[in-house]
Amino acid sequence: MKRNIKLVIEFDGTAYHGWQSQENAVTVQDTLTAAVRRLTGENCSITGSSRTDTGVHALGFVCNFFTGSPIPADKFSFALNTMLPDDIRVVSSEEVPGDFHSRFSAKGKRYLYYIYNSTFASALLRHRAYHVYYPLDVDEMDRAAKHFIGTHDFLAFSASGYSAKTTVRTITEAKVSKVSQARHFVHPKGGQLIEFSVTGNGFLYNMVRIMAGTLVEVGFGKIRADDIPGILAGLDRRQAGRTAPPHGLYLAEVFY
Amino acid sequence: MKRNIKLVIEFDGTAYHGWQSQENAVTVQDTLTAAVRRLTGENCSITGSSRTDTGVHALGFVCNFFTGSPIPADKFSFALNTMLPDDIRVVSSEEVPGDFHSRFSAKGKRYLYYIYNSTFASALLRHRAYHVYYPLDVDEMDRAAKHFIGTHDFLAFSASGYSAKTTVRTITEAKVSKVSQARHFVHPKGGQLIEFSVTGNGFLYNMVRIMAGTLVEVGFGKIRADDIPGILAGLDRRQAGRTAPPHGLYLAEVFY
Repeated sequence: MKRNIKLVIEFDGTAYHGWQSQENAVTVQDTLTAAVRRLTGENCSITGSSRTDTGVHALGFVCNFFTGSPIPADKFSFALNTMLPDDIRVVSSEEVPGDFHSRFSAKGKRYLYYIYNSTFASALLRHRAYHVYYPLDVDEMDRAAKHFIGTHDFLAFSASGYSAKTTVRTITEAKVSKVSQARHFVHPKGGQLIEFSVTGNGFLYNMVRIMAGTLVEVGFGKIRADDIPGILAGLDRRQAGRTAPPHGLYLAEVFY
Repeated sequence: MKRNIKLVIEFDGTAYHGWQSQENAVTVQDTLTAAVRRLTGENCSITGSSRTDTGVHALGFVCNFFTGSPIPADKFSFALNTMLPDDIRVVSSEEVPGDFHSRFSAKGKRYLYYIYNSTFASALLRHRAYHVYYPLDVDEMDRAAKHFIGTHDFLAFSASGYSAKTTVRTITEAKVSKVSQARHFVHPKGGQLIEFSVTGNGFLYNMVRIMAGTLVEVGFGKIRADDIPGILAGLDRRQAGRTAPPHGLYLAEVFY
């Protein structure tokens, strides 16, 4: 009887073409599959909680696989970390019921998006946050984000060509704030790290990045916070802001 | 009449063999010299405030050079940034008096050293902080750091073979604390970022890294905080702790 093992992983997405296995590209899924194969001798199929784009990071990505290996469930984290490159770390491993599925069992997710607002870009944050050099109004961005909360059709905030049964999603938390931060991430001339946190029962393709890009346009006054309800109601991708780049995005947590 | 231009630069030291020009190795000084040459057509000699080791970062490294170029002093930052790789950023440029020398005019420096204290390493902080997996007593580390304050002979905290006229230095600030941090640097299972901040009129070779390594040994109880005065007085490198790795170290600021 094979056991179902759930892993929580952190990764730096800079060097990867996202999570999902691809031909001729290095992905997190393929890298992890190879490590599990080396550890167990099995060709396990690893199921992930989400697809992520090239350059997107994760603090708490969840995946699971079935194994016949006798390794204790909680030891997979230690063992796999010795076989993985250091830009992927398994932060926990545990046995879960056979019907647990990383994607289908997920009840919700939290994403974080970081913006570095400063005249000059930061050498240290170049792959970690979206650099915006014109000053942003964080309070106005937060007021705009509050309009995302609730059950809405997010068609205007999804990449064109996306086909989902429904584009209705429920957002339970959305907040923009200046974050207290490690001082080595503060620009010596006074840069500011801005965090957009959003939690919901599901997200359409590119939805968080389009939300973030729209909030940046709110931040410099091209879109007003109170335009958001109209943009949602218009169901027209062109009314929302541009898609913010992937390297500011972090999958923070998956809820079950 | 050539003008003396002072630059403040931020760099991610991961890809560099430190500041100082070397044969057959990529250094920050050589990379910056090449950018200045492309901009001005001149082979300027760039003077840096300090040597830094491979992998050490800087938030506010200072350097200066003499140029006959007519480019306004404050525009060098913008112009050089277009010619530099994105892991080096000029964050300010200004004209200074002809007798300003980045190293000899410096009155003091502040360094930061970051320790990531968590069972598992962090994928995102792997080049940014020293990972220590056994729990550290931050209060005891701070008590130990306080013993560095004052004018002492720091021979025990310098790399062997170092020859300076004197190994006496004055430390004006030394503090160890848990830092408030961007949430994406918090380990999902609860890692903790610890900051050691130290300011002084000068530092011996490897002095901050030996201080940091000693403080880590205080943190897990191998050395007691109140052993520090005796280690200083002993003038014996072997009594201090191990040299902490370079990638946790940041040159934060140079004072003039």
